[in-house]
Amino acid sequence: MDYENLTLHTDKYQINMMYAHWIQGSHNEKAVFEGYFRKLPFGNGYAVFAGLERIVQYIEGLKFGEEEIEYLRTQEEQYHEDFLAELREFRFTGDLWCAAEGTLVFPNEPLMRVEARVFEAQLVETALLNFMNYQTLIATKASRIKQVAPDEGLLEFGTRRAQEADAAVWGARAAYIAGFHATSNLRAGMLFGIPTKGTHAHAWVQAHDTEEEAFRKYAEALPDQVTLLVDTYDTLKSGVPAAIHTAKLLERQGKRMQAIRLDSGDLAYLSKKAREMLDEAGLTYVNIVASNDLDENIITDLKAQGAKIDTWGVGTHLITADDQPALGGVYKLVAREKDGAYVPVIKISGNPDKVSNPGVKEVFRIVNRQTGKAEADYIALRGEEDIRNHDSIKLFDPQHPYLNKTIKDYEAIPLLQPIFIQGKPVCDRPTPDQIRSYHKKQLAMFWPEYLRKLNPEVYRVNLSRAAWELKMELIQQYQGDR
Amino acid sequence: MDYENLTLHTDKYQINMMYAHWIQGSHNEKAVFEGYFRKLPFGNGYAVFAGLERIVQYIEGLKFGEEEIEYLRTQEEQYHEDFLAELREFRFTGDLWCAAEGTLVFPNEPLMRVEARVFEAQLVETALLNFMNYQTLIATKASRIKQVAPDEGLLEFGTRRAQEADAAVWGARAAYIAGFHATSNLRAGMLFGIPTKGTHAHAWVQAHDTEEEAFRKYAEALPDQVTLLVDTYDTLKSGVPAAIHTAKLLERQGKRMQAIRLDSGDLAYLSKKAREMLDEAGLTYVNIVASNDLDENIITDLKAQGAKIDTWGVGTHLITADDQPALGGVYKLVAREKDGAYVPVIKISGNPDKVSNPGVKEVFRIVNRQTGKAEADYIALRGEEDIRNHDSIKLFDPQHPYLNKTIKDYEAIPLLQPIFIQGKPVCDRPTPDQIRSYHKKQLAMFWPEYLRKLNPEVYRVNLSRAAWELKMELIQQYQGDR
Repeated sequence: MDYENLTLHTDKYQINMMYAHWIQGSHNEKAVFEGYFRKLPFGNGYAVFAGLERIVQYIEGLKFGEEEIEYLRTQEEQYHEDFLAELREFRFTGDLWCAAEGTLVFPNEPLMRVEARVFEAQLVETALLNFMNYQTLIATKASRIKQVAPDEGLLEFGTRRAQEADAAVWGARAAYIAGFHATSNLRAGMLFGIPTKGTHAHAWVQAHDTEEEAFRKYAEALPDQVTLLVDTYDTLKSGVPAAIHTAKLLERQGKRMQAIRLDSGDLAYLSKKAREMLDEAGLTYVNIVASNDLDENIITDLKAQGAKIDTWGVGTHLITADDQPALGGVYKLVAREKDGAYVPVIKISGNPDKVSNPGVKEVFRIVNRQTGKAEADYIALRGEEDIRNHDSIKLFDPQHPYLNKTIKDYEAIPLLQPIFIQGKPVCDRPTPDQIRSYHKKQLAMFWPEYLRKLNPEVYRVNLSRAAWELKMELIQQYQGDR
Repeated sequence: MDYENLTLHTDKYQINMMYAHWIQGSHNEKAVFEGYFRKLPFGNGYAVFAGLERIVQYIEGLKFGEEEIEYLRTQEEQYHEDFLAELREFRFTGDLWCAAEGTLVFPNEPLMRVEARVFEAQLVETALLNFMNYQTLIATKASRIKQVAPDEGLLEFGTRRAQEADAAVWGARAAYIAGFHATSNLRAGMLFGIPTKGTHAHAWVQAHDTEEEAFRKYAEALPDQVTLLVDTYDTLKSGVPAAIHTAKLLERQGKRMQAIRLDSGDLAYLSKKAREMLDEAGLTYVNIVASNDLDENIITDLKAQGAKIDTWGVGTHLITADDQPALGGVYKLVAREKDGAYVPVIKISGNPDKVSNPGVKEVFRIVNRQTGKAEADYIALRGEEDIRNHDSIKLFDPQHPYLNKTIKDYEAIPLLQPIFIQGKPVCDRPTPDQIRSYHKKQLAMFWPEYLRKLNPEVYRVNLSRAAWELKMELIQQYQGDR
C-alpha cells in the first residue's frame, strides 16, 4: 500500500522560517523543541500517549519530490532556486525522543523532543503535533470508556462520523491500544492487524419481505458469526422473537448464535427485557450488543440501571472525542545553538500557564519500589546528576512548600525513549497488541484515585530545582531587559 | 501523487451483507439508497454540501487489490473463494446523483442517491457518509464564520489541531469553498490549488537575540511578504514598536510591510492600541491579523467591541467544528428490486424523526422568478408529473394545514445532479474557485432571515402529496402487519 507523500503536510510558516534561516545562513544550527500539552482533556486524570507509529512512518517518508518542489516554485514568496535545491536533498538527520505509545502522560511534561538542525526541526512541527494531538486524544477517550466497562466487549464503530478517513483508521488503532477489542473499519484491520467486527444493517432486514426471512438468510450465509440487529421494526414484538427463532434453527445444526444487537430505544429497559426473553428460550449463551450514541457517561448510567449488555459499540462520541475534539498540544523551542553551544530559551506570556520551561529536559517516572506505584513525574535538565543513582529524591513545589516531599527506595524510569538518532530509526516498532498490554501495565502502576472518571486526584509533575531556577533566571533576565 | 486504496475504508458489516447477498443470489438486484442528515449543525439555518470531489475520487479508485483480498481471506467469516474472486472483478457500475458542492442544503432531503446493484450500493455507504459528513460540517462552520466577517480576510490555520491529516486538507478545502481566503496547509494548497498563507512563529523570534533582530532578518529574507508576529514577549511594549521599526526599514527600500499578527491577550484592546501606534507612525497601510481560539461567536463579540482586525486566522474551532464535531448523516434504503420492479421500503422507528421517507425521490428548489429567492425545497417521487411544467405548485404541510401555500411563477431547480451513470463519470469537476463562487450565488438566493447565526427562520422542505401518501401507506401496511 502506498502512503501519500506528507512532506508538505505542514504550515506554510515553517517553510518561510526555513527559508529565512537559509537566507541568513543559520539553517544548520541546532535547535531543541519539546512537544507537550498544557491541560488534560475531558477532565480526566491522565492522558494516553499515542501517535508515535504514525510519526515514525512520516519521518521515514519525508522527501521533497518534484511535485512538491514545483509547487513551492509557484508561491508568491519566490523562493530562491538554490533553496529549492537544498530542499531536494532534505532528509531528517536529527534525534527524536518520544514517550512510548500507551504510556500514561500528564500536562507540561515533554512527550516528544526533537533535536536537529533548525531547518529540520521546524518542518516537522505541524505534522508531529497533528498526529500526537489526535491519537492521544482518542486513546485517552477510549481509556476513559474502558475504565467504566472493564469486563465487557468494546467495539469501535465510528467510521461514518469520523473526521475523514485518516481519523477513522488511526482513531480505531488508538481505541484498540487503550483497550477496545475491535473496530468495524476493515482498512484499519488490514493496516494495523487489529481485530474487526461487523454483522448487518437495517438495510439487510429491509431488503427482505420479513424480518424472520432476513435473519434466517443471514444465518445461512454466516452460520458461525450470527449477530442479529433486532430494532428495524419493533425490538421486543418482532426483532427479538425472530432472533430467537433463528437461534433455534441454528441449534438444530449444532450451532450457537452469538448475539443480538440493540441500536435504538431505551437500552436499559430493552436489554433487560431481551435478556429475559432469551433466557426463557434457553438461550442464555446469546450475548447482547448495544450501540446508539454511547459514551462513558451513558454507559455508566445504563449499567447503574442494571442494563444487561455484554458488548458496547461506541461510534461518534469516541471517534470525534465530541466533548473536547482537540488536544491543545504545543511544540516549543527550549534551546538553540549559538556559537557552537546550546542557549536555553523561554517563551513569556501574560498567562502564567503559557510560560514555557526552558532548557533541554529529561522526564522520569518515580516509582515506589515497595508498592510498585508511580509517585510523581520528575523533570530535570539534561546534564543534571542522574537521579537514578540517588538514595532519595526531594520533590519540591516552589509555590506550595508544604507539598514538598522526599521519596526513598524508588525507581526512576525515563519517559522519553530514543526513536531516531542522527536520522536513523533506533526504536522497536511494537505491535498494537504489545502496546495494548503495555498500556494495561501502565494503568496498574497508578492508584485508582488518579484513574477515576470524575474529579480524579491530580498526579504530581515536578521540575527539578535546577530546572526551576533556570526558568526563574530567564524570566528575570527577560524582565530586566524591559 | 498516489492516493491510498480506500476500498476497505468501509464497515465490516457491509462486506458481510455483500457476502450474504451473494450466498442467497440477490447481490445483482438493484437497490436505491439516499443519503441525508436529519438535523442542522450548530443551530444554523442551512448546511453547505461538500465532499463530492472526494467521493468521485473514491469511486474511481475502488478496486480490491491482492492485499485487500488476502486480508479478507484471513477473516473469521471464512468467505468463500468464489466470493473473493467476485470481489476481484468489482467495480462501481451504478448511478450516483448528488447535490453540487457549495449548495445550501437542509434536513431530510436527499443529498446523495445511489442506484446500483445492492452489492455495490452497500460497499460505498460508509465512505460516502464519512466524506459527506465531515466536509459538509466544516463547510457549514466556515460559512457561519464568513457570515460574521464578510469583509475581512479569513485564514484557515487548524492543521496541528485537526483530527489527523485527511481532516486537515479536506477541511481546508471545505473552508475555502465556503468563503475562506487561504489555508496554512501547503499540501492542501498543492492538492487543490487553493491559496496558502504563513509568516513566522514564536520560535523564529526566540531563535534570535532580540525581537528587533528577528524581525529585521525575516524582512531581509522575504521583503515582499512581511507579516510579523508581535506577542512573543510583550505585544505593545516590544512587539509592535519593533514591527514599526522594521516597517520603516522596509519603506527605505520602497517596500511595504503587510501586517502584524496578534496571537494572545485581549484582541480587542490590543488591536485598537496597535492600530493607533501603527497609524501614528504613518503605517496606515499595515494590516492587523488576529488568531487564538477564534470562532464565529468570539469574532462577533470582538467586532462589537470595535476591534481593529483586518484578517482573522481561525484554527481549532473551525477544523474540528468543536461545538458539534459530527454531522449525523445517514444512508437509507428507499427502494429495492423485487421480481424485476422497484418496491419502496421504509425504516420505522419509535422516534418520528427517524422514520425514513420511502421511494426514489427527486428534490427541487422552488425559486420565485420575481425575487430570485428560494421559497422552499420540494421532494417528489421519481415518475411524478414534472413540476417544472406547472403554472403553480401547492406546498402542503399535512401536520399544519394553515401552512399550505401556493407558489406561481417559479423555477424548479433540481438539487441532485448525475455524477456517475452506469459507472461512468458524467459530471464536470468544478475547481474550488468555481465552487466558491457558486456557493456565494447560492447564499444570494436566500433571504437573510435563513442565514443568520442565531435563531434563523426555518426554511421550508416539503414532501409532495404523493410522497407523503406513500409514506403513510407503508406505515399503515407495517402497522397492519403487527
